[in-house]
Amino acid sequence: MEMENGHAKYRVAVIGSGNWGSVASRLIASNTAKLPSFYDEVRMWVFEEILPTGRKLSESINEQNENCKYLPGIKLGTNVIADPDLESAVKDANMLVFVTPHQFVEGICKKLVGKLTPGAEAISLIKGMEVKMEGPCMISKLIADTLGINCCVLMGANIANEIAVEEFSEATIGYRKDKEVANRWAKLFTTPYFLVSVAEDIEGVELCGTLKNIVAIAAGLVDGLDMGNNTKAAIMRIGLREMRAFSKLLFPSVRDNTFFESCGVADLITTCLGGRNRRVAEAFARNGGKRSFDELEAEMLRGQKLQGVSTAREVYEVLTYRGWQELFPLLSTVHEICIGQLPPTSIVEYSEHTPNLSIIGGHTPFY
Amino acid sequence: MEMENGHAKYRVAVIGSGNWGSVASRLIASNTAKLPSFYDEVRMWVFEEILPTGRKLSESINEQNENCKYLPGIKLGTNVIADPDLESAVKDANMLVFVTPHQFVEGICKKLVGKLTPGAEAISLIKGMEVKMEGPCMISKLIADTLGINCCVLMGANIANEIAVEEFSEATIGYRKDKEVANRWAKLFTTPYFLVSVAEDIEGVELCGTLKNIVAIAAGLVDGLDMGNNTKAAIMRIGLREMRAFSKLLFPSVRDNTFFESCGVADLITTCLGGRNRRVAEAFARNGGKRSFDELEAEMLRGQKLQGVSTAREVYEVLTYRGWQELFPLLSTVHEICIGQLPPTSIVEYSEHTPNLSIIGGHTPFY
Repeated sequence: MEMENGHAKYRVAVIGSGNWGSVASRLIASNTAKLPSFYDEVRMWVFEEILPTGRKLSESINEQNENCKYLPGIKLGTNVIADPDLESAVKDANMLVFVTPHQFVEGICKKLVGKLTPGAEAISLIKGMEVKMEGPCMISKLIADTLGINCCVLMGANIANEIAVEEFSEATIGYRKDKEVANRWAKLFTTPYFLVSVAEDIEGVELCGTLKNIVAIAAGLVDGLDMGNNTKAAIMRIGLREMRAFSKLLFPSVRDNTFFESCGVADLITTCLGGRNRRVAEAFARNGGKRSFDELEAEMLRGQKLQGVSTAREVYEVLTYRGWQELFPLLSTVHEICIGQLPPTSIVEYSEHTPNLSIIGGHTPFY
Repeated sequence: MEMENGHAKYRVAVIGSGNWGSVASRLIASNTAKLPSFYDEVRMWVFEEILPTGRKLSESINEQNENCKYLPGIKLGTNVIADPDLESAVKDANMLVFVTPHQFVEGICKKLVGKLTPGAEAISLIKGMEVKMEGPCMISKLIADTLGINCCVLMGANIANEIAVEEFSEATIGYRKDKEVANRWAKLFTTPYFLVSVAEDIEGVELCGTLKNIVAIAAGLVDGLDMGNNTKAAIMRIGLREMRAFSKLLFPSVRDNTFFESCGVADLITTCLGGRNRRVAEAFARNGGKRSFDELEAEMLRGQKLQGVSTAREVYEVLTYRGWQELFPLLSTVHEICIGQLPPTSIVEYSEHTPNLSIIGGHTPFY
């Protein structure tokens, strides 16, 4: 640990420079420039690309102080330095922010083994873990296990472009045990327009960021069926209840309170109001389920993938494998609609399901 | 208690025949016609009015089986009988559903003293209790105390017109102790498109129905400031947190789980997506606070009153009186914006507030 006047001083590297990575770098850099416990410079690792102009993306960022490809029009702060060399980007850094597409995390971590400063801490801003039959494959755990370091997560209602223009929002940091480290991360991210709280529930926080996409599919179906706000609110609530129940069954340490945090109810609301999962599901319902999600995805998202559909399938496999299907009518129904086994209207047909909520400590429903 | 084949049999009266009263009567009557433990007939007390045609409202309802003034176009069920005579409407009824405007409850109850069947039970569907300095004036308590009977509440994301056309939604019944009675009410209300759960937390359930209107004002301000979904979701989440904290400080028996029920998060979502509190607050922010809520209310609502503004004032009085203002930055700020003391943009300025969430058992925020 480097020290200055007897106090620890931290050096931050951001691994990733897409839309959210660029916004996170900007947010962090505004704090490191002010706070004495951090070095001003924030090194941002860039997966190098050649722009249509023929220039390298990293050079363009450093010259214009702007990521013209993923966050055009927004200055990052002169203390953000783009670096296409991974090893050089993390050199001497003891706070590592992971914010890449989830499929690249494993490869990046393997390259970093043995290259990190002793005592380095990590945080993952990556939503989109996979849920495997034997349990979810948490990205924070992948990072922690591969690198042998502690890894927190930051999740919340965080549309990057809104945070880039400093609209008010919140986020939740999930940590395992070390609250002091979590508070240091919170200090690094908190600004007057971005309020961060900490929760000792890393699994709960990280699961919220993934499971909400299934609920967004359900909300989109309701929109496509032209049902009113009552119905949409009911579906969102049932979705939140099932997210909570599923998380608690997988990890008994998961806390109810987490679902009241930004990573829970707020991220769910944002995702069910906007977002591509909701949008494609709306189109799916408007077409009466006659055009597949794959087809609509290809047409509407131009290469971007719909996380909700694959997460719904993964969760369904877990539910089937463990015999939990009846406990999760909404999560099950979304998958069965996605694969064409049920019509879109099934999303509001729950009368035959009799979930036993005592498992999740909820109030007993009458039905 | 009347008995049939050794089983108790229940007779239902609905007190009120406005929009929600008519829909509730229809919903209930669809069940009493089918379920053997209830008499088919549902007597609905009508506050008599003379229609523009010169006919009496009650006669018109009974002839057309439709409330042409408050729920036009929807058949109520032939077993709904309108009755303009309060005493006759409740005769022999042992299940009384209160669904009048809140300012009439006290007068109606006084008229009913000594007229009820022994052992009668009540439920209130009325949102809009007043919050007085010495504590909230719960409508269920007013009914229970005046009539010396038990009174449950039913609250939720319940836009009457959507339930009238049988769009899927949910509700929560709050009860004090007697779960068997609560389950009987749930049986009376539950249909495949209207799912009802019960919660042993009458104060929590009833407070949700009132406090959400303050949060809807906040959400409307965000809409009027053209902020994105992130910000709106954050404000709704902070609002839910403060609803929960305020309820728990007033009534330590209030349970966290209640806020995950339809009366909590779902009603909040519905109210913040649509609803008149949200709509007028949006107009207020668009006018930069230059036109008062009174003025906009008169112009936009044609005589209907905005509950959120008066509830915000009442809650503010409690906060000031008890020294709790700093704990509730959102609830306080809404009132201060409503009276012109702060500009609408203050709704997203929380950096100077430092609420101590340990009081409500929430995760500790970093700030």
